[in-house]
Amino acid sequence: MEKIFVVGHKNPDTDTIVSAMLMAEYLGEGYVPVMTGKPNSETEYVFSRFGVEFPEILSSAENLKIFLVDHNEETQMVDGAEVDNVVGVVDHHKVNFRNSKPIFLHFRPWGSTATVIYDLFRKDGRDIPERLKPLLLSAILSDTVILKSPTTTDMDRMVVEELSAELGINYQELGMEMFKAKSRISEKTAEEIITNDFKNFDMSGKKVGIGQIETPDIESVRPRYGEILEKMKEKKEAGSYHTIVLMVTDILKEGSELLVVSDDEERIGEMFNTQISGGVSGFLEGVMSRKKQVAPVLEEGFRE
Amino acid sequence: MEKIFVVGHKNPDTDTIVSAMLMAEYLGEGYVPVMTGKPNSETEYVFSRFGVEFPEILSSAENLKIFLVDHNEETQMVDGAEVDNVVGVVDHHKVNFRNSKPIFLHFRPWGSTATVIYDLFRKDGRDIPERLKPLLLSAILSDTVILKSPTTTDMDRMVVEELSAELGINYQELGMEMFKAKSRISEKTAEEIITNDFKNFDMSGKKVGIGQIETPDIESVRPRYGEILEKMKEKKEAGSYHTIVLMVTDILKEGSELLVVSDDEERIGEMFNTQISGGVSGFLEGVMSRKKQVAPVLEEGFRE
Repeated sequence: MEKIFVVGHKNPDTDTIVSAMLMAEYLGEGYVPVMTGKPNSETEYVFSRFGVEFPEILSSAENLKIFLVDHNEETQMVDGAEVDNVVGVVDHHKVNFRNSKPIFLHFRPWGSTATVIYDLFRKDGRDIPERLKPLLLSAILSDTVILKSPTTTDMDRMVVEELSAELGINYQELGMEMFKAKSRISEKTAEEIITNDFKNFDMSGKKVGIGQIETPDIESVRPRYGEILEKMKEKKEAGSYHTIVLMVTDILKEGSELLVVSDDEERIGEMFNTQISGGVSGFLEGVMSRKKQVAPVLEEGFRE
Repeated sequence: MEKIFVVGHKNPDTDTIVSAMLMAEYLGEGYVPVMTGKPNSETEYVFSRFGVEFPEILSSAENLKIFLVDHNEETQMVDGAEVDNVVGVVDHHKVNFRNSKPIFLHFRPWGSTATVIYDLFRKDGRDIPERLKPLLLSAILSDTVILKSPTTTDMDRMVVEELSAELGINYQELGMEMFKAKSRISEKTAEEIITNDFKNFDMSGKKVGIGQIETPDIESVRPRYGEILEKMKEKKEAGSYHTIVLMVTDILKEGSELLVVSDDEERIGEMFNTQISGGVSGFLEGVMSRKKQVAPVLEEGFRE
């Protein structure tokens, strides 16, 4: 029987890797979880804390049947992926997808893909495998910024409460440790800060990249803005981007600053009701979600 | 509270109208089922046989929030629909959809959208409302050509067996009556035969229309091919189509003939391994499904 690879997006994060493992388990025989590249430091912390092995890395999906988790846009798929080789999608992002055959698509507007897969198991009356439970909890905490992101829904809260009680885990503490592991910004190069969690979009024909990095202390990152902006300019030229935005998100102050390199910097400022000066926006109170508060604003702004 | 209209595709058929009613029921308060135009003669037969009222006709969805059932492509949406006003989709067709926000999407590759919604109810432990049960049964029989179409899955068979037993309905008999009601071709004008069940597609930038009409006796339709082809040519010019294909499907012989008007008739013949002579293909054994056996072949053929 031909194997089907269950795969998340490029630049994998905790939710995308854990969702691939959960969904392969849900789908059963013949489905193999993989990841598209090396995990980030947060994901490494989670897997090491709970003693679980990573899935294999799949560097090209050429001529392979794949099942997508946690993404659906071609720009975010593993190299070599072809949309007509996609046999199904489970996701919680905006949609931009086509397929020439009817397939399994399951999208819910919840805080993490892991939450969506939890619900699939539950509705079928099946249990989540024990070893995956702490990973599932971590994936939700990661994607919802410990339930603080505006993408968080009652469904996410319910699953976090249930799993943390069952596992005897203080989820606030776990979440803070995860974000600490993720945001050891002083140990990262400017390049790593940008690509840490970076996604490409096609917006009305313009190539747009949006990165995000979370920190418990935005002030400690500010001294490095100059160096990071230099690298962003290089990346913009090399990749023919119209715009690259990096969200620097303070998870305690609950807001972000945007670093911007763009062919139309002024317009980006207007979209977010802020001034971009020297490539840096003002502090955007409450802005924590790329998916809900940054990508749609840019998409809308570029459509006009 | 703002109302959300639950709506099927243009040129409504039994599955699309019944699915709008089922899904509005599933979603609950604030959701209103509608249809995009007058029902066809099969759907009229079903609603009159089971004594159920039709939903209202919604002729424009301008500035309205909508929930789509049984379609997802812009070319098939009700007039005035905007993709970013779509709050959710339940479907069983190929996908070509975008939305700038995360929404509810639920696609399964089964024989009818009604089957997919049945499963949503069941997984939530909820019952289908009594008055909608015979309509649900009819919707599956319609879309799967009485379980004979290759799109039919075990899930469709299971629901048909269950509902027909529960309701004491001989589904073979019901299905034959439905197709008789649908295919009173002698009573239809050529225009009605073409638009009876007609869908538009965008295939690699080419505008393609595919219609289908079912009959228990293809020989009785052949004498009208000349007249129908004339009308198809008119429609092609008026609508700037690259290709219009009409499937004339014999539900007893289990196969179809294609009537074709196209800027590239020869290529269409090659796609289906047949000769198109005088606008008519040979009899294509086993070809009964637009979705599975005609639309993807054209899409693939035009992509090359």
